[in-house]
Amino acid sequence: MFLARIKRVLVGQPLSNEMIEELKIPRWKALPLMSSDALSSTAYATEEILIALMTFSLLALSWSMPVAIAIVILLAIVTISFRQTIEVYPGGGSAYVVAKENLGHGAGLLTGAALLIDYVLTVAVSVAAGMANIDSALPAIQGHRELICAVVIIAIMMLNLRGNRESGVMLALPSYFFIGSFLLLLGAGSYNLLTGKTLPAAPLLHETYPEIPLFLLLRSFSSGCAALAGVESIADGVTRFKEPRIRNAKSTLFWMTAILAVFFIGLTVLAHVLGITPKPNETVISQLARAVFGKTGLYYLFQGLTALILFTAANTAYQGFPRLCSMLARDRYLPRQLASVGDRLVFSNGIVGLSLLAIFLIIFFEGDVHRLIPLYAIGVFLSFTLSQTGMVLHHWRERGTRWIRSLSIHGAGAVTTLTVLLVIASTKFTHGAWMVIAAMPPLFYLFTRIHHHYLAVGAELSLERESPPNRLPKVKHTVIVPISGIHRGVIEALRYAVSISDDVRACYVEIDPSATERIQSEWMKWAHEIPFVILKSPYRSVLRPMLEYIDDVAQSKNEEIITIVIPEFVTSKWRYSLLHNQTALLIRTALLFKRNRVVTSVRYHLKS
Amino acid sequence: MFLARIKRVLVGQPLSNEMIEELKIPRWKALPLMSSDALSSTAYATEEILIALMTFSLLALSWSMPVAIAIVILLAIVTISFRQTIEVYPGGGSAYVVAKENLGHGAGLLTGAALLIDYVLTVAVSVAAGMANIDSALPAIQGHRELICAVVIIAIMMLNLRGNRESGVMLALPSYFFIGSFLLLLGAGSYNLLTGKTLPAAPLLHETYPEIPLFLLLRSFSSGCAALAGVESIADGVTRFKEPRIRNAKSTLFWMTAILAVFFIGLTVLAHVLGITPKPNETVISQLARAVFGKTGLYYLFQGLTALILFTAANTAYQGFPRLCSMLARDRYLPRQLASVGDRLVFSNGIVGLSLLAIFLIIFFEGDVHRLIPLYAIGVFLSFTLSQTGMVLHHWRERGTRWIRSLSIHGAGAVTTLTVLLVIASTKFTHGAWMVIAAMPPLFYLFTRIHHHYLAVGAELSLERESPPNRLPKVKHTVIVPISGIHRGVIEALRYAVSISDDVRACYVEIDPSATERIQSEWMKWAHEIPFVILKSPYRSVLRPMLEYIDDVAQSKNEEIITIVIPEFVTSKWRYSLLHNQTALLIRTALLFKRNRVVTSVRYHLKS
Repeated sequence: MFLARIKRVLVGQPLSNEMIEELKIPRWKALPLMSSDALSSTAYATEEILIALMTFSLLALSWSMPVAIAIVILLAIVTISFRQTIEVYPGGGSAYVVAKENLGHGAGLLTGAALLIDYVLTVAVSVAAGMANIDSALPAIQGHRELICAVVIIAIMMLNLRGNRESGVMLALPSYFFIGSFLLLLGAGSYNLLTGKTLPAAPLLHETYPEIPLFLLLRSFSSGCAALAGVESIADGVTRFKEPRIRNAKSTLFWMTAILAVFFIGLTVLAHVLGITPKPNETVISQLARAVFGKTGLYYLFQGLTALILFTAANTAYQGFPRLCSMLARDRYLPRQLASVGDRLVFSNGIVGLSLLAIFLIIFFEGDVHRLIPLYAIGVFLSFTLSQTGMVLHHWRERGTRWIRSLSIHGAGAVTTLTVLLVIASTKFTHGAWMVIAAMPPLFYLFTRIHHHYLAVGAELSLERESPPNRLPKVKHTVIVPISGIHRGVIEALRYAVSISDDVRACYVEIDPSATERIQSEWMKWAHEIPFVILKSPYRSVLRPMLEYIDDVAQSKNEEIITIVIPEFVTSKWRYSLLHNQTALLIRTALLFKRNRVVTSVRYHLKS
Repeated sequence: MFLARIKRVLVGQPLSNEMIEELKIPRWKALPLMSSDALSSTAYATEEILIALMTFSLLALSWSMPVAIAIVILLAIVTISFRQTIEVYPGGGSAYVVAKENLGHGAGLLTGAALLIDYVLTVAVSVAAGMANIDSALPAIQGHRELICAVVIIAIMMLNLRGNRESGVMLALPSYFFIGSFLLLLGAGSYNLLTGKTLPAAPLLHETYPEIPLFLLLRSFSSGCAALAGVESIADGVTRFKEPRIRNAKSTLFWMTAILAVFFIGLTVLAHVLGITPKPNETVISQLARAVFGKTGLYYLFQGLTALILFTAANTAYQGFPRLCSMLARDRYLPRQLASVGDRLVFSNGIVGLSLLAIFLIIFFEGDVHRLIPLYAIGVFLSFTLSQTGMVLHHWRERGTRWIRSLSIHGAGAVTTLTVLLVIASTKFTHGAWMVIAAMPPLFYLFTRIHHHYLAVGAELSLERESPPNRLPKVKHTVIVPISGIHRGVIEALRYAVSISDDVRACYVEIDPSATERIQSEWMKWAHEIPFVILKSPYRSVLRPMLEYIDDVAQSKNEEIITIVIPEFVTSKWRYSLLHNQTALLIRTALLFKRNRVVTSVRYHLKS
């Protein structure tokens, strides 16, 4: 089992069912693992707000503060909604499940499509943003961004192919380091400003806000909404928490949101006060860190940790994507191979697929975060809207304790996220959101086609309308053994043939008439009880007369199964098989689409 | 049979045995078909002589006349020898057959290896020389020589994949055109000289011959010996002549040699008298044609016809190479697939292989005739020597009518060709002949290894020491049907299973324990008489417990065959098969190298 060994080396030992319980994670590990996606978005969300505003004028940058505050309010609304979702769906409140169960399969599939696209974009955006922060610090490697991004994605892929226990521990630490270093940045920055070590470039309060078109303001808001991507991951993964999992999940969600809000506001304020403006070759966060720390080792460390948390965020998608595929496959919207947790190998298909798609996006958009962002938020908010709406209907139908409160919260969440969705779709449409919108119908169609196929197969195979027989009726079947001579391998095949049927016949294609007589006399010696059919071959083809004979027998013995028993050699070394005819393979291929033909190879294992 | 249709379009209808007789060719067609290789060598043999002499001095070029005369004498000796070979081997006097039958298998294989290498070189040298003549006339395309050569080789390959009837007619005409145009060139050139229209640059008679090192003279002679390549083709192909085939072959051989001698001497004389010297970017024959015809349309036509006959010569190798492979394969020195004339497809392997090797040589030697030539003649003369020596032994053993005369002729031939072989090997060793010499032992080793394998397999499979049983004993075998649920496909497989054995058991790998009970109760309803084995899968792998179970059954039922009957789906469209588990394929692969396992797929054809 050579392949099995390769697989072990590459993806590690398989996990037993008992070990899955051990994989449940405590809060201190869940926070870094599940929130890296959300937290890391601070590395680009502020910058995107600023870029959008700067298209109007430099003065318009003062609007970044109100926009950031609006986004934090949005974040609070969404978080409160998700806390409720966790309570109702302790088994994992993926937007797909919530939408499917409450709004029907159509909405579920729409959500599923949006989420699949989002996972790919999470990988692409996070890795691209991580690289942007690395090459801000090391301008020498600019120009190789796509290549390095691809290498990073492949590295993350390999990590995930080896399973999430190993990656879990490795990925918890960077998040804590990032949180620590970010707090240090905010603290040091504030300290410098308060002590007058750095002079503010803009006032924080009593700001003047120039008039700018509402559309631009909304577009800036849309850009910043990327900060909310990843907030749903804790609600998705409730089952992965240690007990009491609902309480653990809720408190982890709270802490994540709190940290995200502080980081996002802190970063936006600091960037504004220090007068930082987006530049093409250096990220805002790099400029900020440089302004606060100077070009010290601390600056490089900070940039490294920022890149690391972004790569960790990409890793989040590797947890979610195969899990979502598995859910879709269990509902028969994706190939059933993806459904089973199975050996790790099954998930591998999803992991490799995700990586290739992300690499494709990176190459297509030249690893430019700014060009990827418009595609990102639309899927996030589509799934938010559908899941909030689903929760509204859930509470309306259930009307349990305090249902009015819950319904109101989700109602507010649904209205808000729908509004944001429409804002994003309209303000970002021409910037790339159209691609995501255009990709949805084909995905939706693919899901329904797959579903349709499975339903049709199920109906075709169903035994429901049949009544079971007393005993399974036997099949009458004729066995044909094609031979090219008489030797041990043929004798083995003939022995097998007479064991499985009373109606056995051998057939021999005559290429060289001078050999026929000898073979016939040997036949009489070794297998006289089996009819020996000699087929003429006017065109010296072995295959064609044989196939015609099989058809003839099938026609004369109407409705029966014909078994073709082929003597085949297995050579001691694979390369020797090149020295033998591949007749068995040819016959098998030729009969592949014929009904009522069973092709059986009786393999003779050669010592040579 | 989609593949079959593609094959028909590409390679044409198969030929029936009756049609093979029609393929016998009359003399008028045999001459151009079989002599193009020999005749076309005039296009480069003279030039190679001149190049070798010119390395000494321009004055040394006067030695070209004596060297050419020596080569024509050699040609006469070889031709007379071959006339005798035709008489003794009317079934085809390939050097391989002659050497093998008279000198033993070792000499046969040596000859075979030499000839195989030669066929490849014939293609490479002829196509390269053809291109050299085309780009002499059209200097614009110089620099793309390798590419165009490769395209030409591929075109010839396609022609041959379509079979030799079509190519026969197409290839007869260019040879006649070439003969005609060459005679015109010689005639017009002589006429111009005699009438004084052109003035001779060197005297033909009363020449002064400068002293030059013998080694250089011999090297020049060796280079010119390339003119003899292809002389053997008529003796090889005696069977292809119409009756009386011996007389027809002999007279064709005579005419071929006569034409070749006239052309070769004529060209050498004319080149010398007109004072033509080799140039890197224009062939000698092109310079000559330009000197005689001027840069007229006639010149371009002549160059085109020269290229055409050279390409036709490459085609000769496409006749000989697969035929030689087939002979070697019938003697079990090459894979037996090559042995049968079979459908045309069988020859295709040889044809494609020959083309790829020739293209490789062209690229390696940058399409330079001059660098390819030193490799060429050594194989030719090795096979000449071995076949002449074989004929000497033949006549010594037989001592038939006039055996002393025959023996003397072949003896003279053997001594001459051996001498030439040694001259070529020593004077051309560093120029590339070493490559051919180095390639022989590995080829020889390959032949013997293949032979050894076939002998071992033959001994292993032989029934000679066995005594035939009264009746073939049946095999007791257990059937295992792996199932994943109960549906029509499974029922079909179970019906087949109970038909081929009394000992059938189904096994089911439990991934989801909650489904087991339902399946068990369905089992009792549909197939209660068959034991139903439930396998636990602690690692959620389907394949592994199944393989372990099969091994367990095999061990408990020592020495029996285990048949694994797998229910398999055939979907209506191939792409739908991606939606189904490939368990059958996995099981088949896993059991491929296990003894006493027969894997049988019972395919259920889905309408969906």
